[in-house]
Amino acid sequence: MTARTETEEVERANTTFYEAMERGDFDTLSGLWLEGDDGISCVHPGWPVLNGRGDVLRSYALIMANTEYIQFFLTDVSVAVRSDTAVVTCTENILSGGPAEENGDLGPLVGQLVVATNVFRRTSEGWKMWAHHGSPVLAETDEEPDDETPA
Amino acid sequence: MTARTETEEVERANTTFYEAMERGDFDTLSGLWLEGDDGISCVHPGWPVLNGRGDVLRSYALIMANTEYIQFFLTDVSVAVRSDTAVVTCTENILSGGPAEENGDLGPLVGQLVVATNVFRRTSEGWKMWAHHGSPVLAETDEEPDDETPA
Repeated sequence: MTARTETEEVERANTTFYEAMERGDFDTLSGLWLEGDDGISCVHPGWPVLNGRGDVLRSYALIMANTEYIQFFLTDVSVAVRSDTAVVTCTENILSGGPAEENGDLGPLVGQLVVATNVFRRTSEGWKMWAHHGSPVLAETDEEPDDETPA
Repeated sequence: MTARTETEEVERANTTFYEAMERGDFDTLSGLWLEGDDGISCVHPGWPVLNGRGDVLRSYALIMANTEYIQFFLTDVSVAVRSDTAVVTCTENILSGGPAEENGDLGPLVGQLVVATNVFRRTSEGWKMWAHHGSPVLAETDEEPDDETPA
């Protein structure tokens, strides 16, 4: 067996982060953030900055409680490792839905295009998240999004 | 004289970055980004991710060419240093204006609330920017913005 490269390890940690969100797995998500009371930061799309483990983890508990369904299709994943820190950028193609309606119907599904910068730090227990910054893509790009419309 | 603490050094680099933007000083701005062809990333508010020095610096040249006036009032600056990497989060209270009108009037001034995550790396020539991610604040906050309205 070939040992995983650093880049693969970081990409694995990044994927685990989004999979935990998809499953609403708060314990895994909490375990992925660096320990210690300060020094971590998180920006959800359109939100102000959250600093410190308390505020960051509370925000995820709140998001999970209000999200019935969420799926991330990651594209453009780029990993840069320098010593014990890694910066990952990626596009989060998100499909999400709110809590079910009273009549039992699924809540409305919403597609959203978000880009993220995720900073990871190497620890004895693997790569842990130091900072997450997600933001909505509002500007036009040179690419042709029409080409990507599913048939 | 007391030596600057690491945190002060990082905060100084962060301030220099915004001052270079205010002055339209492309050389200082370029010099603040890590050298090397890949590994740096930049997200302007509402934009997709830019990876690599070429795309990142071109975007700043474009922004500077289209910005007659820009001023950053930084608040909530938070610095976390771990070994040779630093993560800065801050709120950029931006006042900017486009190119002057044909009749010589100033272009329209626009206020904008942006939050940023800036990642710096320690080098032999000081702290250099590894990643910048800025995003518009769209969500409601608990604070009372009315209290901050100038008299």
